[in-house]
Amino acid sequence: MGKQPLNLRNVKLTLSFDGTSFSGWQRQKNARTIQGELEDKLAIMTGEQTVVHGAGRTDAGVHALAMTAHFATSATISCFAFRRGLNSMLAESIRVQQVEDVDLSFHSRISARAKAYQYFFTTDELLPPCRRLYCAHLPGPFDMDRVACCLPYILGQHDFTSFEATGSRDREKTCGRGAIREIFAVSLSPVARPAREYVFEICGDGFLRKMVRNIVGTLIEVGQQRMTVNDFAGLLARKDRNLAGPTAPACGLFLKKVYYEEGCPAA
Amino acid sequence: MGKQPLNLRNVKLTLSFDGTSFSGWQRQKNARTIQGELEDKLAIMTGEQTVVHGAGRTDAGVHALAMTAHFATSATISCFAFRRGLNSMLAESIRVQQVEDVDLSFHSRISARAKAYQYFFTTDELLPPCRRLYCAHLPGPFDMDRVACCLPYILGQHDFTSFEATGSRDREKTCGRGAIREIFAVSLSPVARPAREYVFEICGDGFLRKMVRNIVGTLIEVGQQRMTVNDFAGLLARKDRNLAGPTAPACGLFLKKVYYEEGCPAA
Repeated sequence: MGKQPLNLRNVKLTLSFDGTSFSGWQRQKNARTIQGELEDKLAIMTGEQTVVHGAGRTDAGVHALAMTAHFATSATISCFAFRRGLNSMLAESIRVQQVEDVDLSFHSRISARAKAYQYFFTTDELLPPCRRLYCAHLPGPFDMDRVACCLPYILGQHDFTSFEATGSRDREKTCGRGAIREIFAVSLSPVARPAREYVFEICGDGFLRKMVRNIVGTLIEVGQQRMTVNDFAGLLARKDRNLAGPTAPACGLFLKKVYYEEGCPAA
Repeated sequence: MGKQPLNLRNVKLTLSFDGTSFSGWQRQKNARTIQGELEDKLAIMTGEQTVVHGAGRTDAGVHALAMTAHFATSATISCFAFRRGLNSMLAESIRVQQVEDVDLSFHSRISARAKAYQYFFTTDELLPPCRRLYCAHLPGPFDMDRVACCLPYILGQHDFTSFEATGSRDREKTCGRGAIREIFAVSLSPVARPAREYVFEICGDGFLRKMVRNIVGTLIEVGQQRMTVNDFAGLLARKDRNLAGPTAPACGLFLKKVYYEEGCPAA
């Protein structure tokens, strides 16, 4: 980083959004994105062009319950006024829950110690209309116990190449660890209502591109008897994306929480 | 009714819908409605113009988990084919759950013995983005116990004029009972997550126009300390809509179920 004015602040945002009508997090020309909306509204408030750095780049259609981000500003606007101002200007599909002044060393992505995701899907023949934007439709006979047998194989530190989106990896973001990530917790549970809806939860120190959706897509293959538990168990060692299942739809995925030093499940 | 062809069938539909982008149930010129969509798709399938009679006329923005309706047809299409055909042609915001041949005497509205509604609202300062289409935002300090004290006054048979939408009553629909309706069950419960979301449930033999939303709007007045429990208790006897609270927003309301002879909670 270059020279900074003495009064430069580092501001952390915690926000939730409905990703349905956004082309993901990352700013794009001619497309509505979460980052773009935030930067545009902040420019109006501060008179400065600032980059809002997110803890990750959610894909188009993915939702967030508590995404984190940070930006630099020399504005003297209070955190309270930032929160109120942003929420009054942003669409209701983005809500800023918290605005905090943080140490200049804080970086929403690099400082993150863990992330937790939820993935909702239904195996029912019909997708309930009021769940269709927030729950993937993966119909068919589904054996939850078969999937439960797969989960321990994901836990711990592994090379997740088999579940990484094909295409070039963003080397800047790998922090020298390649495709190795550590998963701290993973679970699959039925949702009380409606029937045949499930929620998959996963928490780890980081995730490769489309890794959660590729894991879910592969677990569905096992639950719907198109792949054996044994095949699943061998997938990580094979390091071959072509052996895993399809990428599950974006609409079922929620970034639930980003953990920093305090309260990190890895500790 | 006039003369009917001998092969006339009476077909019952059970359906769910997301009311967000519909102008309610009732067919209208130049507006997208649930009834209009169903009638249009049935006309394509059967080659007949038929009226789809609903168990009630939901307002714009109101949702349904299990609405019922019926229509007459001389088509020989099987119930299975009706269900599959309708679901393939309708938008995902309407799903036909069940199609059944029923007795010619069955009428989705007149034969109904009870209806159950749910109303979701949050009193939190922020409306969670992914709940905004299905949960009303009524922010402010909220005392659930005060509302609980009001609920017994609604139970049983009453003249609900105080909670009826102003404007002319549809006399055809009153079945000679004016504004008298019987409420079988009523409750208010916190939703597990997110915090400060509540669900109000009510089941009765019938509901006047906007009655559920007017009751909820008035209960919110009590819960947010703008009306006393005593005032609420006296409302029904006063038979004056002007004394009750505002109409709660449409998006929180779900028609949960329509009961016929079997399994009716009134029995």
